[in-house]
Amino acid sequence: MENSDSFAILDINLSDKDKDELKKNDGNKKSPITTVIKIQRDRGERDYIGFATLPEQVHRKSVKRGFDFTLMVVGESGLGKSTLINSLFLGDLYKNRKIPDVQDRIEKTTTIEKKTMEIEERGVKLRLTIVDTPGFGDAINCEDSWRVCSAYIDEQFRQYFTDESGLNRRHMQDNRVHCCLYFVPPWAHSLRQVDLEMMKRLHRKVNIVVVIAKADSLTAIEIKRLKARILNDLEEHQIQVYQFPECDSDEDEDFKQQDRELKEAAPFAVVASDIVLEMGGKRVRGRQYPWGIVDVENPRHSDFTKLRTMLISTHMQDLKDVTQDVHYENFRAQCISQISQHAMRERGKLKRDSMGNNNDVVITDTDRLLLQKDEEIRRMQDMLTQMQQKLKASDKKHDSIIDV
Amino acid sequence: MENSDSFAILDINLSDKDKDELKKNDGNKKSPITTVIKIQRDRGERDYIGFATLPEQVHRKSVKRGFDFTLMVVGESGLGKSTLINSLFLGDLYKNRKIPDVQDRIEKTTTIEKKTMEIEERGVKLRLTIVDTPGFGDAINCEDSWRVCSAYIDEQFRQYFTDESGLNRRHMQDNRVHCCLYFVPPWAHSLRQVDLEMMKRLHRKVNIVVVIAKADSLTAIEIKRLKARILNDLEEHQIQVYQFPECDSDEDEDFKQQDRELKEAAPFAVVASDIVLEMGGKRVRGRQYPWGIVDVENPRHSDFTKLRTMLISTHMQDLKDVTQDVHYENFRAQCISQISQHAMRERGKLKRDSMGNNNDVVITDTDRLLLQKDEEIRRMQDMLTQMQQKLKASDKKHDSIIDV
Repeated sequence: MENSDSFAILDINLSDKDKDELKKNDGNKKSPITTVIKIQRDRGERDYIGFATLPEQVHRKSVKRGFDFTLMVVGESGLGKSTLINSLFLGDLYKNRKIPDVQDRIEKTTTIEKKTMEIEERGVKLRLTIVDTPGFGDAINCEDSWRVCSAYIDEQFRQYFTDESGLNRRHMQDNRVHCCLYFVPPWAHSLRQVDLEMMKRLHRKVNIVVVIAKADSLTAIEIKRLKARILNDLEEHQIQVYQFPECDSDEDEDFKQQDRELKEAAPFAVVASDIVLEMGGKRVRGRQYPWGIVDVENPRHSDFTKLRTMLISTHMQDLKDVTQDVHYENFRAQCISQISQHAMRERGKLKRDSMGNNNDVVITDTDRLLLQKDEEIRRMQDMLTQMQQKLKASDKKHDSIIDV
Repeated sequence: MENSDSFAILDINLSDKDKDELKKNDGNKKSPITTVIKIQRDRGERDYIGFATLPEQVHRKSVKRGFDFTLMVVGESGLGKSTLINSLFLGDLYKNRKIPDVQDRIEKTTTIEKKTMEIEERGVKLRLTIVDTPGFGDAINCEDSWRVCSAYIDEQFRQYFTDESGLNRRHMQDNRVHCCLYFVPPWAHSLRQVDLEMMKRLHRKVNIVVVIAKADSLTAIEIKRLKARILNDLEEHQIQVYQFPECDSDEDEDFKQQDRELKEAAPFAVVASDIVLEMGGKRVRGRQYPWGIVDVENPRHSDFTKLRTMLISTHMQDLKDVTQDVHYENFRAQCISQISQHAMRERGKLKRDSMGNNNDVVITDTDRLLLQKDEEIRRMQDMLTQMQQKLKASDKKHDSIIDV
């Protein structure tokens, strides 16, 4: 080895312990050796290694892959859920909706309506799914609504768990519900019993974001009072809605300011509109009253813009991460514990059988494995069909033949 | 709902099938309804939803979390492995190394030496681990070296599999080997038997990147010839070294050009140095000969800079992704299959016990079904892979994008 003293570009800030370690490791050893060296690197461009591009490499890959996001909206009819979604995503998802008459509303049970949009913006692809629960609270028996929403969320988790436990994990789709917009009516004095019960069933499964709907019917003072009461109720009933993560101390001042404002605004009092009005030559989404025009995006009129910023531009990835790291991990832990309890019982039974007792139907690990594999085969079949269709479509588009 | 005709900001490009679907779904239904709407969005700033920030949200989070990377170096003593690592990472990891004398070298078995550096560059933190295998090839029995390297890689996979299957997955550390730099001596005429055997044991477990060491002892023509022979040997013996991913057709021209040059350079012929020399007022890492100075970073002198660019600035994340998606998934599939075989045997034993018959190994119907299903899954995986390749090929052929 050449004399390395003339090449001392690096500061190696070794602690005494590290130095001892190095001395100990000096010479040749028979066993694996591990050394940890901490290096503080703070030099000019000349000493640039190049791994500072890692976040850009991740960035590039994420764009290539595209994004998934699933938003559930919960609240009774007439609160403007569809209008808010249209306003948020500039969409017109609920154009062909027919409003059911009273008789229908009373009879019908809560059904889940799922809509998926594939949207692209500046080269970024988003597969957005809106899970709507029309009819919630309309029926007299609310228990149904709770059950349906909760079951839907669980079912997505279960699907993900099956996929994640399977052998082919390269093309997993994430349909888990990443956020639940919970609509509180503006005429409520606070959270009602029905709201509390619903949230209690959901808050350990999904990121709840509370919005006060149709807030243009409330004055500034009334909004302030209602927000305080809602926050108070949530605390009193120990309901954990989505918590904004702590802002890093090294973020810039503008970002910190925005973050503070977002946190202070929750629960968001929103006004939405599908109507575009002309206001002083400017086109605004708004609502026209004899006493003035409500400009949906004006932060003095409502929290709509704040909600949109939070939900889409600043915290969408965090909502996904919390879903993965907290809600899904909780679900997974429960599943695993159930499976292992079940397996233990079964094993106990088999042992009893082997001691000469032969009565019950036995569901074993193998049976469970069989079910999982069936599930996987079904999933792969779906994928194959999809890909075949795509191949065909691409084929037709290009008017050429690809042999399959 | 307000009249939405006056608010038609979105193009909803519905196919006839989608329209039928929408018509069908109109009105109220009892069962869950799924609608897929494809939206092409290509408008001005006014219609900006805001999710184009998603890659930046991912970027920001990745910086916050920091990165892990593990590099294994394999090759016999004296090929400049330590010097290359020092040159790549501007470190002085092997400063206190004592070179063992011949007697030591003959006797000692291959030991794994692991060094971890925590380095930071422009706010990006990297926990870099170098896994060195000193003495490889020095001992007379090479089988040991192969076994030790292969076992080390497996052990990291096993640890990850255990962690991933466990309940607390929030603080998992990734110690899997993401890349193996394989050093070929410049005096070899081609890959030697020992190289081929080693690579055969590793190529399904780790991303192998072949480097021709100490390439300053070869002329340009000799390098060209040796590279061609190595590539030929790899192909002939069906050894899959790390494949650079296809470059996206929508990348800019500079990036494409760089990508082409990197691909053409492999296997990289490198020169490394721990010595910094003054050359016309410029400090360069180099080697001084009576006939001239080799400037390590000069692309006309060696592929060192290309190797560094590839390994660190452009493909580090891809090396990690291939490790996760290909090598680790293979390992995991093997583990799961072993576990289920074991479970089946156990079940067989218990059943035999419960039937009071203690002679043969019993394979039950369920077990046979399981095997069949495994077979089916494997077959479908093959089909999926094939179709994907076809889709890609058709994609490339038509130079257009089909959204998957």
